[in-house]
Amino acid sequence: MMHLKATIFGCQQSVRNRRRIWTQGVARRRRAAGSSVRLLSTRLVGSFAMAMALLIAAVPGDVFAQQDPSLPSAGPSPTSDTVKEGDAPAPSAGPSQGSDADHGRLRLRMQTAFNPGISVLGEAARQFVTAVKAMSAGTVSVKLLEAGAKAPTSELLEAVLRGDVDAAFTSPSYAATKVPALQVFASLPFGPTPEEYVAWMIGGEGGRFHRELYEKLGVHAVMCGVAGSEAGGWFRNEMRSVADLKGLRVRYAGLAGEVLARFGAEIVTLSPGEVFYKLQQGKIDAAEFSMPSVDRALGFDKLSLIYYFPGWHQPASLVDFYMRKDKWDELPPERRALIETACRANVTWMLARAPVEQARAMEYFRKQGVTIRVWPASVMEAFRETSSDVLREQAEKDPEFRLVLDDLRQFLDGPRAWKRLVRP
Amino acid sequence: MMHLKATIFGCQQSVRNRRRIWTQGVARRRRAAGSSVRLLSTRLVGSFAMAMALLIAAVPGDVFAQQDPSLPSAGPSPTSDTVKEGDAPAPSAGPSQGSDADHGRLRLRMQTAFNPGISVLGEAARQFVTAVKAMSAGTVSVKLLEAGAKAPTSELLEAVLRGDVDAAFTSPSYAATKVPALQVFASLPFGPTPEEYVAWMIGGEGGRFHRELYEKLGVHAVMCGVAGSEAGGWFRNEMRSVADLKGLRVRYAGLAGEVLARFGAEIVTLSPGEVFYKLQQGKIDAAEFSMPSVDRALGFDKLSLIYYFPGWHQPASLVDFYMRKDKWDELPPERRALIETACRANVTWMLARAPVEQARAMEYFRKQGVTIRVWPASVMEAFRETSSDVLREQAEKDPEFRLVLDDLRQFLDGPRAWKRLVRP
Repeated sequence: MMHLKATIFGCQQSVRNRRRIWTQGVARRRRAAGSSVRLLSTRLVGSFAMAMALLIAAVPGDVFAQQDPSLPSAGPSPTSDTVKEGDAPAPSAGPSQGSDADHGRLRLRMQTAFNPGISVLGEAARQFVTAVKAMSAGTVSVKLLEAGAKAPTSELLEAVLRGDVDAAFTSPSYAATKVPALQVFASLPFGPTPEEYVAWMIGGEGGRFHRELYEKLGVHAVMCGVAGSEAGGWFRNEMRSVADLKGLRVRYAGLAGEVLARFGAEIVTLSPGEVFYKLQQGKIDAAEFSMPSVDRALGFDKLSLIYYFPGWHQPASLVDFYMRKDKWDELPPERRALIETACRANVTWMLARAPVEQARAMEYFRKQGVTIRVWPASVMEAFRETSSDVLREQAEKDPEFRLVLDDLRQFLDGPRAWKRLVRP
Repeated sequence: MMHLKATIFGCQQSVRNRRRIWTQGVARRRRAAGSSVRLLSTRLVGSFAMAMALLIAAVPGDVFAQQDPSLPSAGPSPTSDTVKEGDAPAPSAGPSQGSDADHGRLRLRMQTAFNPGISVLGEAARQFVTAVKAMSAGTVSVKLLEAGAKAPTSELLEAVLRGDVDAAFTSPSYAATKVPALQVFASLPFGPTPEEYVAWMIGGEGGRFHRELYEKLGVHAVMCGVAGSEAGGWFRNEMRSVADLKGLRVRYAGLAGEVLARFGAEIVTLSPGEVFYKLQQGKIDAAEFSMPSVDRALGFDKLSLIYYFPGWHQPASLVDFYMRKDKWDELPPERRALIETACRANVTWMLARAPVEQARAMEYFRKQGVTIRVWPASVMEAFRETSSDVLREQAEKDPEFRLVLDDLRQFLDGPRAWKRLVRP
């Protein structure tokens, strides 16, 4: 079928190239050292989410000052609902809610993995809070709890289940430590673009898988944003071939870390707060962190490192809102619809904002004289093939992961063929 | 600055190619006949909107049966609010609205340019109605009036201004007959992708220009969707070079019609309802109509024509919701926020749905044995250069058109450079 599609669309070669990573029968080119298959479960926490979790103090305010002028401006400033650790604790008796005709007031304490000051990701949390408040004339309010306010980001799921917070605004990669198939929604090496993720979630079966996988964990999840590509990371030395990776101490998380390990890199697990300093002190040789607009805020350009592109390890990642399933089900339908629609609008906002902010950050880096490099073609090819191996092995171990990944791959054939046809 | 950007991003050649259409100093290659500069104002009505306006009867129901499973299902079926011409008329006293604490009920009669049965475009109108109703628990309801129910689509603006209907769901290309700069938001030849339009609207100045241009006409407009690329049209004969266009009777609207006229084509103005039959009867030689999923519904594959791609004449187009400005301003802030957020969510939905539906339609056409062709490179190049001429001349005549077009071009440099870097 693929052959026929490719022929009719007149772009067979391009199809073959793009399909390479997705094809089961791809020729494997395992590299020398470190090619043992490690247990992925503890490393499935995506670079994306981890990079965001502890950024509070390090982020200067000026980067994030810009406010979306197209959103309704009712109510106070978007950060006024933010609570930091140390503020008077919110009552922990669950969402407050009356039962009169108008369903009274609803107040949700939502802890975010992306602090409100963070470019794109943090702004998205504020956009959501603002939209919900504006649409409900304040009868539904979301109190934005900063990362770590009630629980570490990696334990946000448990905090929601315990009722310590009512809702989470976070990456699927955290819950993927418990349900590995959720990794398909977070930071797949050589995976979908942001638009492709959204198409699969709404126009395909992605939304159903996403909901069902989260339900196994006791929560109801709603896609509430989508993040674009990260940078490929900061490296002390030029990467002329994959041989240059051997022996390198690298901070690279998740499935992509596994890929680099197969070329002999030593993967060092660091919290986001440590990355800058370990690089500065020479304790590690390379690290991927986040999107350029976030990397900029942390001042990575001060370290005289080489900045590599593209971020093959994470072309995109969903952002989720979730609540405990039983509490979600108790909400009146109009409030569920309010949250779902605000989340869907948030997806539009992130799709629109992320590329603009990244372009600005790149312009800044250029002016700072940062050395920017594109991975050599041979290195990208090696990453692509080894990523294929790692995904295939994960699929062999985990039927659920395979089911979801296969559905995604199959779905993308259609939209990709269409986009090649209309944007040659 | 462009040069520096291109260099730092390491993809200078690609930048130059993409920039050609946008560059003022492009070499002009006017073709033989029909190259006179015609008045564009009466032809600015985009193919997109025209193609949609009168499709009611011709569209079989089965194409559009699929319902978005991820949207809230509160309330009755999405078409239950639809009214056809001949139904009991809604009261014409303007939006009904109380003044108690909860602002009573609001009932808007919204006429759509895209009938509810139409793939993607019609579904989007229903999605919007459903979301508004679900979020407001029915206190805000939008009565969906089919195309032509109260006024012809081309006179929808006047109908809104007179108060015959409360709101419109339509293409900016109709209002562009009065304010030509609105054409920048509708169907620009070789213009932005859907994602780029959205980025400009939210992350750039596009949203402000859009609002201000519509305000000149007395309405408040909100981006409420975005349509993807159309097909390049149905042709009786192969187009091996632009010389093959000479003397051809072609139905092609707007700025793109002007482009074809410069190669000697005779542009025939037809209503959407006539296109199929004029092609069938041999009265015209070629016609662009709409997206493949809509073309499929009208049975164009039955005519044994050649189907050309890509739709260079319209890579994307916004879809707008608008109301009379004074009535919009009277709405309480939470209701304005409700409509704005439902519209923004609609953008996500259309971005996700359109490519999937087009891929399905192309698969169908393939199975039907339709001859599908990509424009020869030389023909695309000629279209590109002549489109650049036509846009430049329009900009020279109309400072407002120039202002908006220049802002769009300048804005796109950033996101385009970023996307080339991360999706090489």
